[in-house]
Amino acid sequence: MTTKKHAPMTQFSQRDGELLIAGKTVSQVVQIAGQTPCYVYDKAVINANVERLRHHFPDISLHYAIKANPLPSLVSHVSTLVDGLDVASGQELALALASSTGADNLSFAGPGKSVKELTMALASGITINVESQTEIKRIIKLTEELDTDANIALRLNPDFELKSSGMKMGGGSQQFGIDVEQLSDTFDLLRDTRLQLKGLHIFTGSQNLRPESIISAHNNIFDLVERLIEQYKIDIQHLNIGGGFGIPYFPGDTELELEPIADNLKSLRQNYISKFGDCEFILELGRYLVGNAGIYLCEITDVKLSRGKRFLVTNGGLHHHLAASGNFGQVIRKNYPLAVVNKMDATEVEVVDVVGPLCTPLDILGSNIELPKATIGDLVGVYQSGAYGFSASPRDFLSHPHPIQLLL
Amino acid sequence: MTTKKHAPMTQFSQRDGELLIAGKTVSQVVQIAGQTPCYVYDKAVINANVERLRHHFPDISLHYAIKANPLPSLVSHVSTLVDGLDVASGQELALALASSTGADNLSFAGPGKSVKELTMALASGITINVESQTEIKRIIKLTEELDTDANIALRLNPDFELKSSGMKMGGGSQQFGIDVEQLSDTFDLLRDTRLQLKGLHIFTGSQNLRPESIISAHNNIFDLVERLIEQYKIDIQHLNIGGGFGIPYFPGDTELELEPIADNLKSLRQNYISKFGDCEFILELGRYLVGNAGIYLCEITDVKLSRGKRFLVTNGGLHHHLAASGNFGQVIRKNYPLAVVNKMDATEVEVVDVVGPLCTPLDILGSNIELPKATIGDLVGVYQSGAYGFSASPRDFLSHPHPIQLLL
Repeated sequence: MTTKKHAPMTQFSQRDGELLIAGKTVSQVVQIAGQTPCYVYDKAVINANVERLRHHFPDISLHYAIKANPLPSLVSHVSTLVDGLDVASGQELALALASSTGADNLSFAGPGKSVKELTMALASGITINVESQTEIKRIIKLTEELDTDANIALRLNPDFELKSSGMKMGGGSQQFGIDVEQLSDTFDLLRDTRLQLKGLHIFTGSQNLRPESIISAHNNIFDLVERLIEQYKIDIQHLNIGGGFGIPYFPGDTELELEPIADNLKSLRQNYISKFGDCEFILELGRYLVGNAGIYLCEITDVKLSRGKRFLVTNGGLHHHLAASGNFGQVIRKNYPLAVVNKMDATEVEVVDVVGPLCTPLDILGSNIELPKATIGDLVGVYQSGAYGFSASPRDFLSHPHPIQLLL
Repeated sequence: MTTKKHAPMTQFSQRDGELLIAGKTVSQVVQIAGQTPCYVYDKAVINANVERLRHHFPDISLHYAIKANPLPSLVSHVSTLVDGLDVASGQELALALASSTGADNLSFAGPGKSVKELTMALASGITINVESQTEIKRIIKLTEELDTDANIALRLNPDFELKSSGMKMGGGSQQFGIDVEQLSDTFDLLRDTRLQLKGLHIFTGSQNLRPESIISAHNNIFDLVERLIEQYKIDIQHLNIGGGFGIPYFPGDTELELEPIADNLKSLRQNYISKFGDCEFILELGRYLVGNAGIYLCEITDVKLSRGKRFLVTNGGLHHHLAASGNFGQVIRKNYPLAVVNKMDATEVEVVDVVGPLCTPLDILGSNIELPKATIGDLVGVYQSGAYGFSASPRDFLSHPHPIQLLL
């Protein structure tokens, strides 16, 4: 067992030994859902995340990347708080168009967009973050067929990498974006077309908890963009510098410190504007806006002792929450923060494995984790489940009931 | 790059450079599906799998574990070929009841079955593979409430482990089954109840490609069961010895040799019958019956060269086929066998990465893999996709269209 601890989960308060979500005890929440398992998202926590970002980044636009959590009611709520939405598929675009955000502040990124998706994007007038020269040629053809202009931004694959990132999405060989070395040819392609270059998009990675890495990426991004502006004499209205802000999931992880990132970005922005005039700078965030606002609740259905090890068997698991099971991008499985959410003030603890109902040893929510002594009927909560939970899980695996989702 | 090769995929033939599935070229298959991506399952390959097993194991009953592939038409087809079906949830039970297999040959395994699921099982008269003492107590209560008998088998957690298995599901501390050390208490619980002990169930692991490991597990299972019969004077009508027969997925994997397993099982069976009288011995197989019968087809939408690496971007990926992306129980990602299925006789090859449309570097179908030189519109096929593919994937992740499934 590791001696590292999970960061304290302070986004939810407690009452009478029960966790409180949106002012309701977890017992009440389960009554509202009508069942366990359920995912519950707390609007107030999302609001607080946005407020914190607004405080630190008053001059930077905030976009929400819908892929983090595409629950329609959540997208609608977040759209009232942020300046724009970013989509990654036609269906996400449909969701974004239904929100309060106007087409001017919607953008669409992703490799291999289909002709149908590009048509949706052109007809709705949103900005397409172009990922390849093939895509540019497709868009040129479509603007001719549809007799329309196209708003595009170039997604660049930079010539540097983001350090200490959960996932690298820029630098080296990538399926994402256009290598900066190919920009000369790319600008040739754009000449005399109805494609309007609105901006640049550089997404270097995700789930980063080290301010110095993010600062270094921002420095590199601004340095690269300034070089490109000078080299190609381009005029951009916006620069999407991606996101990558991480949240603490695993033992030893700590909250990302925003202050130094904000200070650095402020001076980068001022320096840019003094050289090139005004520009909209965009932070595109998914996980950081909604991840800590969600909790996955399941119920203990059996407690088993097998050869000295104690198993809490629950009605939830891998099929509902792939990431918490450790099967989504993790090399070595680590536990998400868990709690017995109806026994928050229990003092007697025990070390247990928390497992689900599936006939596979992969169905683990917690391994060798210290929890309050729990019994059948108690509720286990998996924190940090607001992003890449419900939608990123194989919910039909073994054909168990799907979880309910609530935004409260 | 590894020098190990994938086993040859001989289950499908070819015509005019195209892969043939159920006598149709892949181009025709895609026309039938009406779209890419699609999963296609070939009945003839499933039939051949069953015939091979019948040839080697003429005296052993064959059961199909629905969790491997719960497509209703496929379950219906397989049910006409095998002797029984095994389910892992209430929804799978509903599927099984709709098939041609009678309740006598249906069994339900899985930790933490809900009261609703147990009620379904009792009302339909199938056999419940009991996983814990808590479950026995629940069933006793239900037989009283419903005034009915219950057919049960005990799922045992043995005191040995299966070697060289893809996943261990027996031995050591487990959420599965009842530790054999707890059997005395368990039999006490069963006394004077309406629970009829029909058999025993021992599932030691899955995806094993080494005959000697499976033989060793069978030897241990029979040894254990004979000890238990003598110790507890129990009378069983069936013994489910699980499955665990693997299929080749990765470079270096080879087809499992059945002959030595069959020879050994034959003598174990004869020896058992000579001591204890007749008994039905059951092999419970999922992956081995349907895994090689399925192929996942997707279409190349872009070909990108990024800093010396060639990317085939397809409209399929992790969201449809989590296992092929390497995010389902693999520690080190390895490639599934892939082909450019409309260019089977191409001679010019290149090393590529095959990726999907998702905005995540996890969305990989093939990494540094040698394939025929391919272009936009070509079809990539992922072999060995008949089990744990469609149903075990997070199909809503990024909200792209779901694949079509065809049984031909």
